[in-house]
Amino acid sequence: MHISKLFIPILKNNPSEAKIKSHQLMLRVGMIKQSSAGIYSWLPLGFKVMKKIEKIVREEQNKIGVQEILMPTIQSSEIWKESGRFEDYGEEMLRIKDRQDREMLYGPTNEELVTDIFRSSIKSYKSLPQLLYHIQWKFRDEIRPRFGIMRCREFYMKDAYSFDISDEEAFFSYNKFFLSYLKTFKRLDLIAIPMAADTGPIGGNLSHEFVILAETGESKIFADKRIFDLNTNKTVLEKKSLEVMRQEYEKYYSVTDEKFNKEEFEKKVSNENRLVTKGIEVGHIFYFGDKYSKPMGASVDLPGGKKDFVKMGSYGIGVSRLVGAIIEAKYDEKNEVMKWPISIAPYDVSIIPMINKNENNLLDKANNIYTELKKNNIDTIIDDTDENLSSKIKKMNLIGAPYQIIIGKHTDGDLLEFKETGKDSYKLKLKDIIKLITEQKEKN
Amino acid sequence: MHISKLFIPILKNNPSEAKIKSHQLMLRVGMIKQSSAGIYSWLPLGFKVMKKIEKIVREEQNKIGVQEILMPTIQSSEIWKESGRFEDYGEEMLRIKDRQDREMLYGPTNEELVTDIFRSSIKSYKSLPQLLYHIQWKFRDEIRPRFGIMRCREFYMKDAYSFDISDEEAFFSYNKFFLSYLKTFKRLDLIAIPMAADTGPIGGNLSHEFVILAETGESKIFADKRIFDLNTNKTVLEKKSLEVMRQEYEKYYSVTDEKFNKEEFEKKVSNENRLVTKGIEVGHIFYFGDKYSKPMGASVDLPGGKKDFVKMGSYGIGVSRLVGAIIEAKYDEKNEVMKWPISIAPYDVSIIPMINKNENNLLDKANNIYTELKKNNIDTIIDDTDENLSSKIKKMNLIGAPYQIIIGKHTDGDLLEFKETGKDSYKLKLKDIIKLITEQKEKN
Repeated sequence: MHISKLFIPILKNNPSEAKIKSHQLMLRVGMIKQSSAGIYSWLPLGFKVMKKIEKIVREEQNKIGVQEILMPTIQSSEIWKESGRFEDYGEEMLRIKDRQDREMLYGPTNEELVTDIFRSSIKSYKSLPQLLYHIQWKFRDEIRPRFGIMRCREFYMKDAYSFDISDEEAFFSYNKFFLSYLKTFKRLDLIAIPMAADTGPIGGNLSHEFVILAETGESKIFADKRIFDLNTNKTVLEKKSLEVMRQEYEKYYSVTDEKFNKEEFEKKVSNENRLVTKGIEVGHIFYFGDKYSKPMGASVDLPGGKKDFVKMGSYGIGVSRLVGAIIEAKYDEKNEVMKWPISIAPYDVSIIPMINKNENNLLDKANNIYTELKKNNIDTIIDDTDENLSSKIKKMNLIGAPYQIIIGKHTDGDLLEFKETGKDSYKLKLKDIIKLITEQKEKN
Repeated sequence: MHISKLFIPILKNNPSEAKIKSHQLMLRVGMIKQSSAGIYSWLPLGFKVMKKIEKIVREEQNKIGVQEILMPTIQSSEIWKESGRFEDYGEEMLRIKDRQDREMLYGPTNEELVTDIFRSSIKSYKSLPQLLYHIQWKFRDEIRPRFGIMRCREFYMKDAYSFDISDEEAFFSYNKFFLSYLKTFKRLDLIAIPMAADTGPIGGNLSHEFVILAETGESKIFADKRIFDLNTNKTVLEKKSLEVMRQEYEKYYSVTDEKFNKEEFEKKVSNENRLVTKGIEVGHIFYFGDKYSKPMGASVDLPGGKKDFVKMGSYGIGVSRLVGAIIEAKYDEKNEVMKWPISIAPYDVSIIPMINKNENNLLDKANNIYTELKKNNIDTIIDDTDENLSSKIKKMNLIGAPYQIIIGKHTDGDLLEFKETGKDSYKLKLKDIIKLITEQKEKN
C-alpha cells in the first residue's frame, strides 16, 4: 500500500498524555485512537497487528483440539447470581438496565455463561472432555484506566474453558493449555515464563500467569534464571509427556510478588541464579474444579449411573494487550526503532524512495519493486510522499516493518540498499531480498 | 472432525418457540443457543458458517480498497449529542452509566464515532477519498426480539463509511459499494436485488436496500422481473463503468413497501413483468452528504484554500443476519434438507458409516476415507456414533455439508455411495470425489 492512501495518522512528537512506550508508539503512528476513557478504536495499522496476533492465538488453540464458539458481550445478571459472583465482582463489572428494566451486564469474563451453555447440552461423561474457547470483547470498568490499551476498559481477549470428569483428566486439559501458551508466545517471538499465581476473582487453587520480562512491567517477578533454558521441543500432546513438561517448569522458583516469599526464594535459588525484575502478564490459566459447576448444577452421568459435577478450568490470553506488551518488549525507545516480529508485523517490508521535486524516476523504480514484491506475496508499504529521506526513514522505523529498502542516490543498477530495520544497510539484489523475506516468513 | 467429539447439541424435534425456519434449524442443530432475550451464543457449527461469511464480506471490501479498522462497542454519549441523534434514536439505543456516572451507550451504528476519528486525522482534500470499514458487534434494544438471530438485539455487522470532497466523488464511492455488495451476495450464492429505500434514522436522500427473495421475508417487495437478468460481469472499478451499472439497475422498478406507489408500478411495469413477493434485507447503503460532517465539524482544506465539510455515506451488511437469511433462502423445510453453498458450508462433506454392534470395519473404512480427504484439504465431518443409518442421514441433512458419502452395505470395493445433499446417490471413486469437491471449492 501507498502511504499517501492509507489511514495512518502519524504525529510528529510523542503525545504528552502517554506515560509508557507502547502507549506512546501506538498513538504516535496512529495504531489506535482513544474514543473515551479507557476505550480505543483500532486504526488500520494497529488492527492489522492485532488480527495477526489473534490468528496465531486461534491456530494454537485449534492445535490442541479446543473448539471455537462465540458468546455475546451482554449477559443476563441471572447466571451471575447463581454462581454468587454478581455482588462479589464489585464496581469493575459494567452493570446495565435494558428498556424493560432487566438487569444485564457487559461480560468481564465468561465462566458463568459457558457453564450455562455446557449444562444445557452435555449430559454424559462420554462427551467429555469438552474444551471450548472464544475470542471476544470484554469490559472491565477500571477506576483509573491508563497506559493505553495495557490497562483499558474494553479489551479483546481469548478465553477458553475446559470440562472434565475428574481432577486427573482436568489436569490433563490444564497442561494442554500450558503447552499451547508456551507455543503461542514463542510464535510471537516472546519469552513468556509461567509463574505460580493467585487466582483472584476467578477462584480455585491452581493457577499460572504467563509473564514476559519488561522493565516497564507492572508485576514484580522473582525467578530462577534456569527456567529460561527450558523448552517444549520434546513435549507431545499426551498425558504423561505434558505432566513431565509442567514438572520441569515447576522445579524452578518463579512467582510474582503476590506469591513472593523471601525466605523460600533465598533457600531454593542460589545467588547467581536469582532474577528479580519486572514483567507483563500476557496469559493466565486457572483450575477451579466445581466452583461454578456445583452452584450452577452442571453435572454429567458417570459410568456407574451416578452423577457428578464437572471439573472446570479457564484459560485467558489478552489479545489486544499483547499488541502493547510486544511493543514494551521490543521497542527501542532511545533510537525510536520498532521492529515487529515478522509473524505479526503490519507489513513485511517498507520501500523508502527519495523523491525530488518534479523528478519521479526514483518513485517509478520504487513502484516497480513494489509490484514485484506484491507478486511474491510480500506485504509492502511504500512511502510515496514528498518528505525528505531522513524523515521517511524515521517514520518507517516507527511503523516497524522488519525490513527496509531505500531507493536513494546510493542505489546503483540491480543492487538495492537493503536493511533490517534498525541495523546497517547493505547491497542486495531484489531477487535475494525476496528470497530472504520469504524464508523468514515461512520460518515464523 | 468426529461428531462424538464435537460440541453440536442436536435436538430431536423442532423447538416450539421457533416460528421461522432459520430459527428452527439453527436451534435444532445447535448452531446457536439463546442466552437471554434477543441475545445468542454461537456454537461451533454456527460460528464456522458466520466466520466464512465474514471472510467473504471482508475480501470483497478489501477488493474495492476499503481499509479495515475496529471501533469499540461502547461509545460516549457526547458525540451523539453533537450530531443530534442522542435523543432522536429513542429506546432502541442501549444507554449505560459507568461507575463514574458518565453517559455511555452500546453502539447501534457508528456514523458519529467514525466521523470523530476522521476529523481528528484528515485535514486535506489530498487525503481523500477515505473508505473505512469495521466488522463489530452492535446492539439495538428491540422491544420484541424474535425470529432468532433475524431480529435480535446483539448482532454482528459490517459497516463501512466513505469520505469525499464532492457529491460526484461521493457517488463514485457509493457505486463502488453498490458493486461490491452485488459481488458479495453472489459469492454467498444469493440473488440480492438493490431496491430504492427509505433512509430512516441514518438520514440522507439516496439509499438502496439489498434484498433477497424469501417467502418468510418481512419486507413486501415490488419489482420488475427483468432486474434479475442483470449482472456485473462487465463492470470495472472506474467512475463511468460504475455509473452505467447503477443506471442499469435503476432502470427497473424495484422498491420495498415503504416506497411503493401502485400507480407508478402499474405504469412502469407491464403486467407480465410484475413481481410482488416478500424478501429479506441483507444490506443497506446510504448517501447523506454532510448530515454528520457539518454538525461535527469534519472539514478539509480545498485546493483553493477554502474549507468544506466532507460528503459521507455509510454501507451496512448484517453478517450474523446473513446466516439466517441464507437458511431462509435455501432450507427445504418439508424434506428437512439444508444444503449450504460450499463457500460457507460448515463442512465440505459428511461421511456416514453404518456401525453395527461389535463390528468396526465400516467405521475403519470411514476413518481411512476421512484421513484421505483431510490430506486433500477437504473439511469433513464423520458420524462415528452408533445410531442407525437413516437417523444419521437425517442428522447430516440438517447439518448441511453439501456432499455426503454413505458407507453402508451398498459400498463395494473402490466405489463409494456418494451424493449431493438432498439428491440421489450414485457410485463414485474416492479420487473422483476429491476432484469434484476440490473443483467446486475453487469455483466458489
